[in-house]
Amino acid sequence: MTLDETLDDLVVANRILAHENVVDGFGHVSVRHPERADRFFLSCSRSPALVTRDDILEFDLDCNPIDQRGKTMYSERPIHGGIFQARPDVNSVVHNHALELIPFGVTAVKLRQIIHTAGGIGHEIPVWDIRKGFGEKTNLLVSNMAQGHDLASALGPNRVALMRGHGAAVAGPTLRDAVRIAIYVMVNAKLVAESMRFGEITYLTDGEIEATDAMASAPLSMDRVWEYWKQRCGM
Amino acid sequence: MTLDETLDDLVVANRILAHENVVDGFGHVSVRHPERADRFFLSCSRSPALVTRDDILEFDLDCNPIDQRGKTMYSERPIHGGIFQARPDVNSVVHNHALELIPFGVTAVKLRQIIHTAGGIGHEIPVWDIRKGFGEKTNLLVSNMAQGHDLASALGPNRVALMRGHGAAVAGPTLRDAVRIAIYVMVNAKLVAESMRFGEITYLTDGEIEATDAMASAPLSMDRVWEYWKQRCGM
Amino acid sequence: MTLDETLDDLVVANRILAHENVVDGFGHVSVRHPERADRFFLSCSRSPALVTRDDILEFDLDCNPIDQRGKTMYSERPIHGGIFQARPDVNSVVHNHALELIPFGVTAVKLRQIIHTAGGIGHEIPVWDIRKGFGEKTNLLVSNMAQGHDLASALGPNRVALMRGHGAAVAGPTLRDAVRIAIYVMVNAKLVAESMRFGEITYLTDGEIEATDAMASAPLSMDRVWEYWKQRCGM
Amino acid sequence: MTLDETLDDLVVANRILAHENVVDGFGHVSVRHPERADRFFLSCSRSPALVTRDDILEFDLDCNPIDQRGKTMYSERPIHGGIFQARPDVNSVVHNHALELIPFGVTAVKLRQIIHTAGGIGHEIPVWDIRKGFGEKTNLLVSNMAQGHDLASALGPNRVALMRGHGAAVAGPTLRDAVRIAIYVMVNAKLVAESMRFGEITYLTDGEIEATDAMASAPLSMDRVWEYWKQRCGM
Repeated sequence: MTLDETLDDLVVANRILAHENVVDGFGHVSVRHPERADRFFLSCSRSPALVTRDDILEFDLDCNPIDQRGKTMYSERPIHGGIFQARPDVNSVVHNHALELIPFGVTAVKLRQIIHTAGGIGHEIPVWDIRKGFGEKTNLLVSNMAQGHDLASALGPNRVALMRGHGAAVAGPTLRDAVRIAIYVMVNAKLVAESMRFGEITYLTDGEIEATDAMASAPLSMDRVWEYWKQRCGM
Repeated sequence: MTLDETLDDLVVANRILAHENVVDGFGHVSVRHPERADRFFLSCSRSPALVTRDDILEFDLDCNPIDQRGKTMYSERPIHGGIFQARPDVNSVVHNHALELIPFGVTAVKLRQIIHTAGGIGHEIPVWDIRKGFGEKTNLLVSNMAQGHDLASALGPNRVALMRGHGAAVAGPTLRDAVRIAIYVMVNAKLVAESMRFGEITYLTDGEIEATDAMASAPLSMDRVWEYWKQRCGM
Repeated sequence: MTLDETLDDLVVANRILAHENVVDGFGHVSVRHPERADRFFLSCSRSPALVTRDDILEFDLDCNPIDQRGKTMYSERPIHGGIFQARPDVNSVVHNHALELIPFGVTAVKLRQIIHTAGGIGHEIPVWDIRKGFGEKTNLLVSNMAQGHDLASALGPNRVALMRGHGAAVAGPTLRDAVRIAIYVMVNAKLVAESMRFGEITYLTDGEIEATDAMASAPLSMDRVWEYWKQRCGM
Repeated sequence: MTLDETLDDLVVANRILAHENVVDGFGHVSVRHPERADRFFLSCSRSPALVTRDDILEFDLDCNPIDQRGKTMYSERPIHGGIFQARPDVNSVVHNHALELIPFGVTAVKLRQIIHTAGGIGHEIPVWDIRKGFGEKTNLLVSNMAQGHDLASALGPNRVALMRGHGAAVAGPTLRDAVRIAIYVMVNAKLVAESMRFGEITYLTDGEIEATDAMASAPLSMDRVWEYWKQRCGM
C-alpha cells in the first residue's frame, strides 16, 4: 500500500471505528509510516467520526510532531509511540473506551476468545493499571512516554491490553487488522459477559485461537468485512 | 415462484438478514434451484448487506460452482450443500453468527421456544461441536463436505443447529421461512436469556410448538412480516 | 375529536408504536368509533409501520367487518372486540409483543410501577394464560370471541394484561393514552428487569400510582410527548 | 460567552441531550443568565428534541417567567430555581429520566465513578426521595419551590442527585459541563450495572476522581466532544 492509500485508509479506519461504536467522542487510531518505521500517523485532536485527511499529522516515535501545522494534538499520543517502539511487528494501534471492555478491566474476570470471528485477539489479554507505576492521583491518561512505555510493557507480545477504568489498546500487524481486532474484541467481550450468566463457558482451544487468527486476517475474510464496514460508515 | 422471482427474493433475503442483525459482515443464505433439486444458489463472497443479483452463483450439491464467473466464493458453502443433500424437505439454508445465539452454543443451557412468533424453530435445537469429528485445531469453519455432512447429521430432522463458538445453521422449507425462522430464533434466544434471570420459565407446550409452526408459516402471518422486513431494508 | 381526526390519529398511533419498538411486524391498535360505541376501527392485516388511512376498516363489537373492501383481516380482532364489550370506559386497545414484557408473562415475577412516567399502568397487571380455558394445543392467538371474552375477563378493571408466551393487551381511555401506556409499560418492564439485579426495589406507593396516572394523562404531559413521538416517526 | 451565544448553545444542548438518549419526550436543561445571576433560561413545555430558539423563556430564581409570551411552561421549573438559588457555583442544570440511572434510585446500590470519562460526577451521588418531605401521595414531580429547595438541599455540594422512581438532577459549572456530566453519569451507570455482575469492582480513587474532573472539563477534552455531539444531532 502506498503512503497515499495508507492515509486514505486511516481516515476510513477512523470513520469505521466511530460507526461501529468502538470509539465515541474519544479514542484514536494510528498507522506506522509505510516507508519509514520511525514515524507514524495520527489525527490531530478530533473525534474519529469527524476526522478528514487534512487532520492527519506525522509523528516520530517519541510522539513529537514533524509539522504540527498549528493543530491541537491528542494528549495520549504516547500509547501509540510506546507500542510502536516496543513492537516492530505492530503497524497500527487503536485506543478506545468501548463499553463492553470496561468491566474486564475493573474486575477479576479474564477476557478470553469465545467466538471464531474474534480470531486475532490472542491467547492472553493483560490488564494494565496506571496506579502501579504512577500512583493514585493520575487522571488515568497515558500522557507521557514513561507511561507509554509502561503500557507497552504490560501489553508484551499480545494484541490487546485493557486499561483499568479507562479502555484498551489494540495492536495489529496492519491498520485493517487493528480495526478488525478492535471491533471483534468488543463483540467477544459482549458475548463473554452474556454467556457468563449461563454457567460454565467452553472457550476456544489454543489450536483454535491460532487457526482463527490466520483465518480472520486472510483476504477472503478481511476484504469482505472491510468492504462492509466501509460502506456502512458512508465512505 | 419462478426462477427469476426466486433469485430476486434471494437478494431481498440477504438484505433483510443484514438489516435485522441476523448477519453482520459475515453469514450467508442459500436457496435450492426451484426447477432442479440438485442445484442451489448462493452469493459469491460478499457481505449480505451488499449482495446484488449479479453476485448470485449456482452450485451443485457438492458445492462446485456451475459457472464461477471469476468470482471469489464463500469457503463455508458445505453448510448449504451438506444440508441440501441430507434434507430433501429443505429448500433454503441461513448461516449466521447472531450474538443472541452464541451463549447457547458454548454453555449447557438449552434453547427452547418461549414465544409464539418463534413458531417453526422446532422441538429440539441441537448443538454441533466441530471438535468431535475434526479435532482441536480447526478454524471452526465448515470448509469441506465431510464437515458439511457432519453438521447436517447433527441437525438431523430439526430446523436449527447451533455451532459451538461460531453460530447457527437454519433450514427452512422455503426461503422466506428460513429467513423468518433465523430472525425469530434470535428473538427467542434473547427472550430466554432475559427470562432466565427471572426464575423458572414456562415454555410452549409440544402442542403449541406445532400449532405456532403452522400459524407462523401461513400466508396471513408470513406475507405481512415479509412486506414489513422488505420495506425496512429499503428493497 | 371528530371521526376524521380520530382516523388520522389511528394512523399516527400505528406509526408511533412501530417506531418506538412496541410492535414489530406484528401487533395492532384499535380505536372505538367516536360517534357510536358499538363500533371500532382497526387496520386490515398489515404491519403497523406501513398502515395508511386506506387500510383502516370498521368493525362491530363481535369483530365483523362493516365493509371488508376485499382486504385481509387480522385474526386477533377478538382482543379488541372482547375488551370493548367488557369495558365501556375503554376507547382504545393496543396489542403487542414488546420483548421487555415477555419475561413477566412466563415467570412468577410481577410487573409493578417503578417510575413516574409509567403513570396509568395501574395497580395490578394480571397474566392471562390461554391454556387455562382452551387447552395445550392452541397457537396462542386470540382468534375467536370466546377467547376474546376470556382475555377481557382476565384483564378485569385493569389497564394492562400480559399474555403468556405471547405479549400484552393495553386498554386506554383514549387512543393517545393507550399508546402512551403501551410505550411506558414497556419502559417500566425494562427498568424492573434491570433493577431486580440490584436487590430489593422500592416501587411507587398506591398513592403515587394514582397521582402519576392523573399527571401522565393530563395535557401538559400527554401533548408534549405525543408531539415528540409523532415527529420521531416522521408523521 | 455572550447572551446570544449562550441561548444558541442552550438549543444545541437540548438537541444533544435528546440525541444521546439522556432525555426522551421529557426532561429539560437550563442555563443561568450570563449577565445577571438572578435569572435563568429554560424552554417552554416542549420535548428537548424539538426545542428551538423561539421556545426559550427567561425566569427569575423563584421560577416566575419574565415574559411568558403565551407559552405553556414545564411544571418542574423548581428543580432549576431551587438549585440556582442554593448553588452560586452552578450555571446550568439538566433534569432527566435516563434509564440507566433509575435502578440506582430505587435500590441500595451506590453509583460511583468507574471510568475516567465520567470525570466531574463527583465523590458522592445522593438519592432524594420526595416521600421524606412531601408524603406518599405525590406524583413525584418537583412542582413547587418547597420541593425545589428540598431537592437542592439533598444535592448539597455535589454534581448529581438521583430522584427515587423519577430520574436525576445534574448541576454543572457551565452549560457544556452539565451536558457532558449528564451524558457520562449515564454511561458510568451502565458500566457499573454491567460490572456488578462480574464481581467486586475497582472504582476510581479519590485522587483520580479529582484529576479526571479537571481533565474532562479542560478544553482539550470538552471542545472535542462538544463538536462531536453537536455534529451527531445535526446542529
